[in-house]
Amino acid sequence: MTSPDAAVRTAVAEGSAAFLEQLGDWLRIPSVSADPARAADVRASAEWLAGTLREHGFPVAEVWPTPGNPAVYAEWPSDDPDAPTVLVYGHHDVQPVDPVELWTTPPFEPTRDGDRLRGRGAADDKGQVLMHLLGLHAHLRATGRTSPAVSLKLVVEGEEESGSPHFGALLKERRDRLICDVVVVSDTGMWSATVPSVCTGMRGLTDCQVDFHGPDGDLHSGSFGGAVPNPVAELARVLAGLHDDEGRVTIPGFYDDVLAPSDEERELFARLPFDEGEFLASALSRATTGEAGWSTLERLWVRPTAEVNGFWGGYTGPGHKTIVPSEAHAKVSFRLVAAQDPVRVQALFRDWLSARTPEGIRSSVEFYGSGVRPCLTPLEHPALQGVQRSMSRAFEGPVLYTREGGSGPEADLADVLEAPVVFIGVGVPDDRIHAPDEKVEVPLLLKGAEAVAYLWADYAEKLPRRP
Amino acid sequence: MTSPDAAVRTAVAEGSAAFLEQLGDWLRIPSVSADPARAADVRASAEWLAGTLREHGFPVAEVWPTPGNPAVYAEWPSDDPDAPTVLVYGHHDVQPVDPVELWTTPPFEPTRDGDRLRGRGAADDKGQVLMHLLGLHAHLRATGRTSPAVSLKLVVEGEEESGSPHFGALLKERRDRLICDVVVVSDTGMWSATVPSVCTGMRGLTDCQVDFHGPDGDLHSGSFGGAVPNPVAELARVLAGLHDDEGRVTIPGFYDDVLAPSDEERELFARLPFDEGEFLASALSRATTGEAGWSTLERLWVRPTAEVNGFWGGYTGPGHKTIVPSEAHAKVSFRLVAAQDPVRVQALFRDWLSARTPEGIRSSVEFYGSGVRPCLTPLEHPALQGVQRSMSRAFEGPVLYTREGGSGPEADLADVLEAPVVFIGVGVPDDRIHAPDEKVEVPLLLKGAEAVAYLWADYAEKLPRRP
Repeated sequence: MTSPDAAVRTAVAEGSAAFLEQLGDWLRIPSVSADPARAADVRASAEWLAGTLREHGFPVAEVWPTPGNPAVYAEWPSDDPDAPTVLVYGHHDVQPVDPVELWTTPPFEPTRDGDRLRGRGAADDKGQVLMHLLGLHAHLRATGRTSPAVSLKLVVEGEEESGSPHFGALLKERRDRLICDVVVVSDTGMWSATVPSVCTGMRGLTDCQVDFHGPDGDLHSGSFGGAVPNPVAELARVLAGLHDDEGRVTIPGFYDDVLAPSDEERELFARLPFDEGEFLASALSRATTGEAGWSTLERLWVRPTAEVNGFWGGYTGPGHKTIVPSEAHAKVSFRLVAAQDPVRVQALFRDWLSARTPEGIRSSVEFYGSGVRPCLTPLEHPALQGVQRSMSRAFEGPVLYTREGGSGPEADLADVLEAPVVFIGVGVPDDRIHAPDEKVEVPLLLKGAEAVAYLWADYAEKLPRRP
Repeated sequence: MTSPDAAVRTAVAEGSAAFLEQLGDWLRIPSVSADPARAADVRASAEWLAGTLREHGFPVAEVWPTPGNPAVYAEWPSDDPDAPTVLVYGHHDVQPVDPVELWTTPPFEPTRDGDRLRGRGAADDKGQVLMHLLGLHAHLRATGRTSPAVSLKLVVEGEEESGSPHFGALLKERRDRLICDVVVVSDTGMWSATVPSVCTGMRGLTDCQVDFHGPDGDLHSGSFGGAVPNPVAELARVLAGLHDDEGRVTIPGFYDDVLAPSDEERELFARLPFDEGEFLASALSRATTGEAGWSTLERLWVRPTAEVNGFWGGYTGPGHKTIVPSEAHAKVSFRLVAAQDPVRVQALFRDWLSARTPEGIRSSVEFYGSGVRPCLTPLEHPALQGVQRSMSRAFEGPVLYTREGGSGPEADLADVLEAPVVFIGVGVPDDRIHAPDEKVEVPLLLKGAEAVAYLWADYAEKLPRRP
């Protein structure tokens, strides 16, 4: 008799050829959501996925229209009425392929190159969505079940690479169908191929444009310079005041809701083989900097930021024009961490800016929407513990923790569905997602499928049901 | 027997009709130096002036070619070999006329409207150049002389409205012919038609572009924000640091060479009927501001400034793009006062910037040329005293002092010719120079001619000769 792990491994290996063939078929559909001319391809991608889910045994697999590109929804209830419900999140749209001439092989002709499968969407995110079908196959084969041990739901959106403009509304509209005990997101990565890891949270985001208006027209700096407020200089002063000398954001109340990482999490972060030189190379930067008292990884993962994304105002052409400008503008964004609320941060920034606007300047600030909430599942959460155990079994060794510095729709899932969010992702930093020659490491996809198979059995036993 | 003043007044009045007719002829020549298509007109303007000077008795009147538009040079030596030599400076080119549809009458069809003569160049500067011919006529008639009491030279350039790109070189090349005991500039104005005044100096200028380079490309602010230097934020910090909380420029040594105005000059400035509301209206501004401890006029006239003329960097388009930008840029200009040296200020700013550039940022600064030197003739200087006396006689009352906040080629004249520069100008702030409906107040031009007539007699008696 084989151990459960050996049975899963065998089932994954046996299913891998068909899995790769199907992934190849899907990758040939150029589902670029940013390109309106590709709308029919994104629809075809959704139809392909729904059909494939039905072929794999999902009793329900639907294409959900949105005002933009459609999402796919599927469910396969467990025959155990007490089984927990798991919602898997991913996306079937892909990034544009430009500059297409930098691809080694055409982006929509998936090409195997040793352990790698190259093609747009191979890692982000078609490979990781389809990994769940292979994982489910292995789960069923290894357990001898005819339905999963958890009640499984999938929602695979079609606009993630375009900022998920309709996903929040879809979630709210379809909330009753999507309700679950845990959300499993498969759209992220690991530290590296040799350092498997689990992501525990993402930063939130809110961003805005700031406008400063001084004199009602550009003025001759000889006739007026030195005696009237200069909005470009004043905006520079305000932007400079966003941080103190320790790199801390100066807006009163900004840090009030920030959850400090536990000593355990910081200790685990410190075990990651972070290489400052490699980081600088990837950042094309000559120095690291940031908030005093935190490591580079902590600055990116557990600390919020205020960042000036751009500024402009006055004369910006060739040569010189000695004016006191009339206007100045800046784009400012805030990366947030749990449990900061983007809407509260917006109000804090408005008050701070208003108090700092000097006499003679009219300032205004326009935020783009209500922002993205940060999300975090603490290390001790049972949903995360299950992922940790499953990944450890698949990778046959310890698994560390990471977070993502970026922001995604994951917090919306947690908010609307009132469920914890965990991440199971097997991308690696050199997958070149969003760039030419995107690829996925096939052995990691198979390990990911293995982890999925373990996770459903683990959750069936140990995941607390929602109250 | 009439008093000298009555004789001058009579001569000016008798000559005024012919003067205005000639001025009308000159104003019909559209000598716009900024428009290459008008180059022949600028040449025609130079030829017209040289011819008119000869008609008026100047034994020498030449058109001096430059790589751009020609200047006019003329001289009429005194028959007194001990007479001082005076060089009058003006320009015969004019500003463009756009938007031409806003003119009440066509810009090159001079039109009399009560006391006003409307037309491009009426005040700036053809009216004030020709005023010297009427003044000379009155001087000769009132004194009965057949040559002026001073040896008179005129240099009237053709590119002042285009930044005098060749004037400095022309001065150096023709220095031997231009040498003089005093330079009289007639290209400025008075406080107002009812508050005659004499300008005693102009601010200098040097300006540059500052470039900050951070990471070698724009970065995703989720992946890198908070951990790498942001050149836009860092440049904002540097620009904000240009001034302290008192509005003083923080660059070490910046104020070292600044000459403080005398108590007398400050007291005389304070007598000018400065109206804060009118100033704000003309500045289209809602507040005055600037260096603590100085009035608005002093901030504009006797204090140097650092001004940010523009900045740009990162994302500046519609909507949002959450990046850590790669580059940031700013245009920075310095208005200087006597005896600051633009080249020394450039070096001070370079050092200051270099010391303030944070780790991970490469900064560079490019100054546009060697700058414009400030110029100042102190109140007690005999050349200025002569102007003061002559203006008081012409305007039959006290004359106050002003300075100009702007910068011009006047300091080059002082430097190259090693002579004091004084200003005799009768423009007024509402002359709309550089704008549609430029005009000159004819009674002021006639008063100016009177003052010129007094000045040559005054200088002949009292001006010290160069050593």
